[in-house]
Amino acid sequence: MDNYPPTARTKVRRLPKRASYDRLAVHGILDEGFVCHVGFAVDSQPYVIPTVYARADETLYVHGSAASRMLRTLTQRVPVCITVTLLDGLVLARSAFHHSLNYRSVVVIGNARLVDDPEEKLRALHWITDHVAPGRWQQVRAPNALELKQSSVLALPLAEVSAKIRSGPPVDDEADYSLPIWAGVVPVTTQLGRPIDDGRVAAGAPEIDLARFTRFAPRIR
Amino acid sequence: MDNYPPTARTKVRRLPKRASYDRLAVHGILDEGFVCHVGFAVDSQPYVIPTVYARADETLYVHGSAASRMLRTLTQRVPVCITVTLLDGLVLARSAFHHSLNYRSVVVIGNARLVDDPEEKLRALHWITDHVAPGRWQQVRAPNALELKQSSVLALPLAEVSAKIRSGPPVDDEADYSLPIWAGVVPVTTQLGRPIDDGRVAAGAPEIDLARFTRFAPRIR
Repeated sequence: MDNYPPTARTKVRRLPKRASYDRLAVHGILDEGFVCHVGFAVDSQPYVIPTVYARADETLYVHGSAASRMLRTLTQRVPVCITVTLLDGLVLARSAFHHSLNYRSVVVIGNARLVDDPEEKLRALHWITDHVAPGRWQQVRAPNALELKQSSVLALPLAEVSAKIRSGPPVDDEADYSLPIWAGVVPVTTQLGRPIDDGRVAAGAPEIDLARFTRFAPRIR
Repeated sequence: MDNYPPTARTKVRRLPKRASYDRLAVHGILDEGFVCHVGFAVDSQPYVIPTVYARADETLYVHGSAASRMLRTLTQRVPVCITVTLLDGLVLARSAFHHSLNYRSVVVIGNARLVDDPEEKLRALHWITDHVAPGRWQQVRAPNALELKQSSVLALPLAEVSAKIRSGPPVDDEADYSLPIWAGVVPVTTQLGRPIDDGRVAAGAPEIDLARFTRFAPRIR
């Protein structure tokens, strides 16, 4: 199945031509982001909290520490929305109205469960660590039992999912193209800089190798 | 008043040493971001949608087009959460557990109102446009009456606000510092690239001048 079937809750209503339900497009966006924003409600007040995550096949694992407010109320599955947004460009049109951004975003809704099986939690922490810093997990000290207990992870199935993508130049009203106004796109990229060690790296430690961060390889300065 | 008074809903409970309620710190984060994530609930299902915004004094104005799902239900003030997150670095520790991100985030909660006064809406669109592309508003064609009507803007007062900030190197368990593992920070920055015109720029149009995008000046490649 190559598409996530749109539901009444995930069907994009505003500018539906920008919508995508394509599984590979969704995976690509989720796998490129560093941070997701988790939305949940407590006493009908929404909260939106940034945190780290990883996709494993058709499950999104989210580091729960940032959402302590949610976890306190999480005795069973809780409705959440997890959104990942990648900003690609500022779209500068000739009219204020047609200004826009180039972006790729994914919205996942559903009921999150708290991962309490220690083996699944350990696997999820592995994926989350390697999602942010590929290959890192096997280079570092693994969590001990206490650390594992102190960590919290949520799981959300990739079932109700939509992506929204805008790319390319501005689209102006035909009459505006004659105006003497520059129009186009200012690209926006996320860049990794030169690593800064913490001043206490033990002798013999291998250098950090950003080339392992393959998804970012073309972007390393 | 230099601080936003923490409330039961904005008091940071997880890692409170990272919390800030300082007005200038909050303003700085809001003014640097491009995109916010707006959280709202429809039939107790949270949604989190990225959109553009601007701060004007102690009000956050949010472009409402992305939140058509919310606006359909917005007959009066609606509880929302607006979060802006700036990612500054990957924090690579010697233990998996102490991995982190350096980031600056602001969470604003409260009841948003739909801006229906045309003059306030026009001012808000001006601020939102100039927030993304400083100085742009006065260079481009202003919205006509129909475009203004088709635009929607939400306003949220900066009243219940908290910031959360992590910076600096990883903090490892003392026993782990002897491990032969590189540890430190990989900086992450948002960069503007060389502008790409849309191929239809009229003769005589001045070049786009990214130096006007002053907040990003040090980051332009």
